[in-house]
Amino acid sequence: MAALILEMIIEVNGVKIGDPKVVALIAGPCAVESEKQMEKTAAPLAKAGVKLLRGGLFKPRTNPQDFQGLGKEGLKILEEVAKRHNMATVTEVLDPRDVDLISAHTDILQIGARNMQNFALLKEVGRTRKPVILKRGLSATVEELLLAAEYILSEGNPKVILCERGIRTFENNVRNTLALATVPLVKELSNLPIIVDPSHSTGKPNLIGPMSKAAIACGADGLMIEVHANPSEALSDGSQALTPDQFSKLMQELEPIAKVVGRSIRI
Amino acid sequence: MAALILEMIIEVNGVKIGDPKVVALIAGPCAVESEKQMEKTAAPLAKAGVKLLRGGLFKPRTNPQDFQGLGKEGLKILEEVAKRHNMATVTEVLDPRDVDLISAHTDILQIGARNMQNFALLKEVGRTRKPVILKRGLSATVEELLLAAEYILSEGNPKVILCERGIRTFENNVRNTLALATVPLVKELSNLPIIVDPSHSTGKPNLIGPMSKAAIACGADGLMIEVHANPSEALSDGSQALTPDQFSKLMQELEPIAKVVGRSIRI
Amino acid sequence: MAALILEMIIEVNGVKIGDPKVVALIAGPCAVESEKQMEKTAAPLAKAGVKLLRGGLFKPRTNPQDFQGLGKEGLKILEEVAKRHNMATVTEVLDPRDVDLISAHTDILQIGARNMQNFALLKEVGRTRKPVILKRGLSATVEELLLAAEYILSEGNPKVILCERGIRTFENNVRNTLALATVPLVKELSNLPIIVDPSHSTGKPNLIGPMSKAAIACGADGLMIEVHANPSEALSDGSQALTPDQFSKLMQELEPIAKVVGRSIRI
Amino acid sequence: MAALILEMIIEVNGVKIGDPKVVALIAGPCAVESEKQMEKTAAPLAKAGVKLLRGGLFKPRTNPQDFQGLGKEGLKILEEVAKRHNMATVTEVLDPRDVDLISAHTDILQIGARNMQNFALLKEVGRTRKPVILKRGLSATVEELLLAAEYILSEGNPKVILCERGIRTFENNVRNTLALATVPLVKELSNLPIIVDPSHSTGKPNLIGPMSKAAIACGADGLMIEVHANPSEALSDGSQALTPDQFSKLMQELEPIAKVVGRSIRI
Repeated sequence: MAALILEMIIEVNGVKIGDPKVVALIAGPCAVESEKQMEKTAAPLAKAGVKLLRGGLFKPRTNPQDFQGLGKEGLKILEEVAKRHNMATVTEVLDPRDVDLISAHTDILQIGARNMQNFALLKEVGRTRKPVILKRGLSATVEELLLAAEYILSEGNPKVILCERGIRTFENNVRNTLALATVPLVKELSNLPIIVDPSHSTGKPNLIGPMSKAAIACGADGLMIEVHANPSEALSDGSQALTPDQFSKLMQELEPIAKVVGRSIRI
Repeated sequence: MAALILEMIIEVNGVKIGDPKVVALIAGPCAVESEKQMEKTAAPLAKAGVKLLRGGLFKPRTNPQDFQGLGKEGLKILEEVAKRHNMATVTEVLDPRDVDLISAHTDILQIGARNMQNFALLKEVGRTRKPVILKRGLSATVEELLLAAEYILSEGNPKVILCERGIRTFENNVRNTLALATVPLVKELSNLPIIVDPSHSTGKPNLIGPMSKAAIACGADGLMIEVHANPSEALSDGSQALTPDQFSKLMQELEPIAKVVGRSIRI
Repeated sequence: MAALILEMIIEVNGVKIGDPKVVALIAGPCAVESEKQMEKTAAPLAKAGVKLLRGGLFKPRTNPQDFQGLGKEGLKILEEVAKRHNMATVTEVLDPRDVDLISAHTDILQIGARNMQNFALLKEVGRTRKPVILKRGLSATVEELLLAAEYILSEGNPKVILCERGIRTFENNVRNTLALATVPLVKELSNLPIIVDPSHSTGKPNLIGPMSKAAIACGADGLMIEVHANPSEALSDGSQALTPDQFSKLMQELEPIAKVVGRSIRI
Repeated sequence: MAALILEMIIEVNGVKIGDPKVVALIAGPCAVESEKQMEKTAAPLAKAGVKLLRGGLFKPRTNPQDFQGLGKEGLKILEEVAKRHNMATVTEVLDPRDVDLISAHTDILQIGARNMQNFALLKEVGRTRKPVILKRGLSATVEELLLAAEYILSEGNPKVILCERGIRTFENNVRNTLALATVPLVKELSNLPIIVDPSHSTGKPNLIGPMSKAAIACGADGLMIEVHANPSEALSDGSQALTPDQFSKLMQELEPIAKVVGRSIRI
């Protein structure tokens, strides 16, 4: 880790991820489902001030019978809706063979928890110059997360954003156990930005607010939150998504917490 | 859980634990070691406004060769030092046979993580009328924590304060994995107050500040923090204790976070 | 661990637990429910050659509303039924205040998983001269299990029998994850006998046979198996109990495995 | 799982994996290091009767600075050495782009634990007609393992061999916690063969023997064991490898256990 000394700030669409004065917000649905669904989700988010829009194209579902995402078809939808609202895009890449295409049409690449140690994929995104959100694996240690980041860094791409999204434990009342101590721990061990995903980690809309506040309070550089225009009709993970309205309200509650720690969610 | 409807507020020495306007602070050393050590720790804490002084008499150490605490002898020290500074006392009870004696000389009883399902002990403290801090077991689910509380409640003692102190996972960079989502989860499932122990859960002084802020931000009713006049000389768990000075500084950082969520650490 | 050099063999009712030529069998119901139930369970077990009869008096149930056992009343039933069939008895003790009474009327004391680090209780059974089965805690490391044994040994009682009964993990298809590597690991680190509980660890009758064979194959000194005359009517944990018939059949399958590793289940 | 009814037997080089009368043995080094090392390892294994030779080409190491394997260069070595000794080959594939090349020159493809949910890779090996060993992920449930297998099966490749290789828990005295109950559990839920890897799961040569016996005793269809001509000089995971001599001796101890459960390790 010796090379990681200077604080890394990654600017995308005016949002300085890793800047000690900023809490970056990434919001959007689990999966891109249709042009209409994306528009109805993105429009209110943009109005609320969100600059980074997420949406999944390929859904790595545990069960091959479940909805697998629109694939490359969804890429155009994500790109056009985001452009219309002056938003940048975040999407997950699963296959090293898709990296070129996806990085040509998106602003931030995401590596999901299941692929944190998919080294072929890490190296491939390391060869692009796109920012990469690297999610912690379900049973990965913090040290392994940092070493996985090294696979990307060592290919020449310095723009890695770590993401704490909960680990798998015996506790079943929440989807995963959000390990927020990862945030200050990573700040000690690395200069990379670290964001928190309160949606996947808890799996419960009611817990997203409290855990978002806690994440900001302990120093997270950003939040990635699932928002869907109509959660009850979502094709994937709808039960844990907020509506755009709920998300706007949450933003108002988060700003005062951000202020206390010297940051802002407004850019 | 049907009976748990009204919010439970437990007042000790003027501190209303469970009051949505209050963050209760409990501070003190892992173990009572001597009159001098307790005095040097308690005096600055009292001056900083701490009303609840903790100190262990019997240390349930993994290894029988390690320091086991002063035992009943320490009880007098704890009681006298606290009285001198107008503080109330918190101490752990390990053996059902000690409950009568200890509850006669202390203000809050504590059940440690290892004893969360020591049902003989739970029933015995349930027969007292002293407030009881019940720490979550190392691998206990939230549901099991609430059911353990029922063992105390069903003996007629309604004054149970739950405590999230981290669970055991594969992650070794921290002592335990602090599962802060427990705080809002317990608020949904129960009317009992819940406090957080950032000292045992992280085992690292540097992480106590960030995790204390996070705990308050997500709704914790209080914090229990290890403070020792001279951590490097502590006979038990010194490496994770703050000095009284560090603790006072932390209090100043916590008050603004508490304010944002409508609470105060000052009584 | 320096003192643990000579192999410890603990003889009870002719069964040499820890003898490299013996696989000790302990069988019986989770809970003593009635004289009739014990008789109907013990008689066929005795006929099949079982010398060690287990039965719980105090059931440490997670929920205080569940059946809590017959208590001391059950002690007389257990003792009389066992005597009638020339069996020795194994029962769990939960409260240090019960140790004198129970050790006067039983042959082997058991410390349950929840109490592995109940040090007051460990010391109390350490003051008796009865063999003690010490079950591994749900999230205890092997090192912690051995250190818990030291609490008993250091009070002067050398007769400790360790018991691997599964640890708590994220896997929910079985009740606990039976960690059989504990058996050869303990053999390297200690001279204490180690037995395996395939009933609590799996929670599934179909898995008891395969895991019993595996336990013997990797060197376990004994097995503790739940047997109930009528599992579907059991007041506690019936779903994982074998009938006496199923158990007798299993014994016939176990003997050839035991032979291959130089042992026998017949005494 | 409705379609999984008939027992699946996969024959490779005369070894019937999944046949209730056979325990299939796969042995070889963690990594192919050189022609000489492979020859010195394979020759005595072949002489001992081993028909399936493993050797890794691409080592998915946590740290990018560690030895990463010989890559495609190693493929020729593995193939030639195996052919010379009438052995079939097993090697791990990490990147969907390598599947065509590797499946043209090897007999069994292996998907490592880190890639159990690398769905792009699973689909790609599902399009070949080569047998695939699918290792359980470090924190994967048994149900997730079976669903990952469905990704391969649903592409038309029915030859999936599951592999229990331990899960990640808090226990640090062993590398992973070998969960042998997975073996009978999978037998109930699926018709796919399941083998056990006692090397990676324990990380300790002394535990490989006992756990191999246990695996066979509870019904495993095979074992995959690390063997290296000179473990102390191995470039990867040497500390857990057996020498060819130790392995031959182990084979002699395993045959009687296999016999008791109606199987044989000799083909």
